[in-house]
Amino acid sequence: MAKSLALFNPNSNFPTLTKPYPNPRNPHHGPRIVSMAQNQSYWTSIEADIQTYLKKAIPIRPPESVFEPMHKLPLAAPKTTAPSLCVAACELMGADRSHAMAAAAAVHLMHTAAYLHENLPLTDRTRPKSEVQHMFGPNIELLTGDGIIPFGLELLARSMDSAQNSPDKILRVIVEITRATGSQGMVDGQFRELTIVNDDDSDIIEYVIKKKEGELHACGAACGAVLGGGAEEEIQRLRNFGLYIGMARGMIRKNKSGLFKEKIEELQGLAVKELDGFEPEKVELISSLVELELESEPEPNLVVA
Amino acid sequence: MAKSLALFNPNSNFPTLTKPYPNPRNPHHGPRIVSMAQNQSYWTSIEADIQTYLKKAIPIRPPESVFEPMHKLPLAAPKTTAPSLCVAACELMGADRSHAMAAAAAVHLMHTAAYLHENLPLTDRTRPKSEVQHMFGPNIELLTGDGIIPFGLELLARSMDSAQNSPDKILRVIVEITRATGSQGMVDGQFRELTIVNDDDSDIIEYVIKKKEGELHACGAACGAVLGGGAEEEIQRLRNFGLYIGMARGMIRKNKSGLFKEKIEELQGLAVKELDGFEPEKVELISSLVELELESEPEPNLVVA
Repeated sequence: MAKSLALFNPNSNFPTLTKPYPNPRNPHHGPRIVSMAQNQSYWTSIEADIQTYLKKAIPIRPPESVFEPMHKLPLAAPKTTAPSLCVAACELMGADRSHAMAAAAAVHLMHTAAYLHENLPLTDRTRPKSEVQHMFGPNIELLTGDGIIPFGLELLARSMDSAQNSPDKILRVIVEITRATGSQGMVDGQFRELTIVNDDDSDIIEYVIKKKEGELHACGAACGAVLGGGAEEEIQRLRNFGLYIGMARGMIRKNKSGLFKEKIEELQGLAVKELDGFEPEKVELISSLVELELESEPEPNLVVA
Repeated sequence: MAKSLALFNPNSNFPTLTKPYPNPRNPHHGPRIVSMAQNQSYWTSIEADIQTYLKKAIPIRPPESVFEPMHKLPLAAPKTTAPSLCVAACELMGADRSHAMAAAAAVHLMHTAAYLHENLPLTDRTRPKSEVQHMFGPNIELLTGDGIIPFGLELLARSMDSAQNSPDKILRVIVEITRATGSQGMVDGQFRELTIVNDDDSDIIEYVIKKKEGELHACGAACGAVLGGGAEEEIQRLRNFGLYIGMARGMIRKNKSGLFKEKIEELQGLAVKELDGFEPEKVELISSLVELELESEPEPNLVVA
């Protein structure tokens, strides 16, 4: 069965700082300009495929009061690169991306549910998130979150038929996703987030980023490696890559005050190191996630209903 | 793969009214008094086993802010007989109840999450449910619901090891549970419930009862039959039994004004008829759910934190 994420603690044995990945903006990296564009289009194509898969998997149909928000809210939720990483990890293992589409969609749906529920107007929310605009009323956003969590896992369970994944692999991926998004993963991060008092509570913020963004990316990468037919060591290295890269991306997003500058570089270096030994051409593609612009993750385009 | 509940519509071919099950309170049914007590203790023993399983599966451990509510809230949630029916259906198939414990726990956790989320204080709740007391604050009850949905499915996915269920059966059960509790099942019922205006909107109320209580019992019974090794026809008959019995129990609960009197008797009769041909001694046990007192389902003993 799945190796437990509970036993996985990369912070306990952080290696010494490795050389960070070269800055793609550096003019001395001339030949990388073409490559950068190719890499960007690789991630764009994955993202487009996931969106197409989701649109098809959740059509608007009766009852529309249920399926209209279920269709629209996941497409409008802020992007995370964890689902794309799932697909890229599957391809790194040499498998067709179709094997990873249901898992990638499930990861995105879990992320969407968390986002919707984080932004519900509850009476004991300490920090109002007034900048978030809502497409539907709170009740509908609550219930849509409740609906898409099991739906994502249903998609995955059914991928035995559609993507011909083996039942063993699917069950392992279900454990990976439920673990990463449940009370020992994302939900733990959400609980801890409530205890943040100041913007410079770096220990708690780092923990929250690890739980919410790090482990979701770790999960995405591990699931892709499992479904792509990776060996245990490969799955573990992809999981580590995901953790580092997810944490780095989360820290970049929170880095307004330069709080995590050194840590981000350290994590990016660690991430790339985990890919040593994989096929170089494919490593180039997946490791380009390190430098993928955050601007490609648009703000949520929600409109008030 | 799992036969789709979406295609399953018993209302389209309701048979003519069958003789309702004899009333156990009728003094002419003397020999049934002993049997009644045995039957009651059968359900009590199943319920106790599920509670024990849940307590062990969700111990209070660090971080306690996460695991204390996760341990306490499912134990304090109002009872539903759907999880017990899952275990009874497994035993009706001649299998040991251990095969069904994870599925029964998952059904109870899904029910708990729905209950917690239904009673959150949101700004657009039309009908305040002031009689519900809360153990924790809204934020924690929201996040606990979010945590126990994936946790229930994780328990199930792991039951390949613990209960030696085959991966195929587990995946089928995951599809049954995600379908029954997601947007085509319980969540649809919750959406529709918001549209109830009067206590005598019997069509909408019946639809809500079918979605929330009928299909949850149908799911519990079908899952138990799958895990107990039932054939397709047996699984379908148990699913029908669960639907009828769950709807009848839901209607009894809402029957203050006598709205569903005839329908309840009709459903109970239909339920019992589905068990024709199964082993008579075991049929006596499982069909006693028809007459199981609702008083055995206590009001939630939540206390204000």
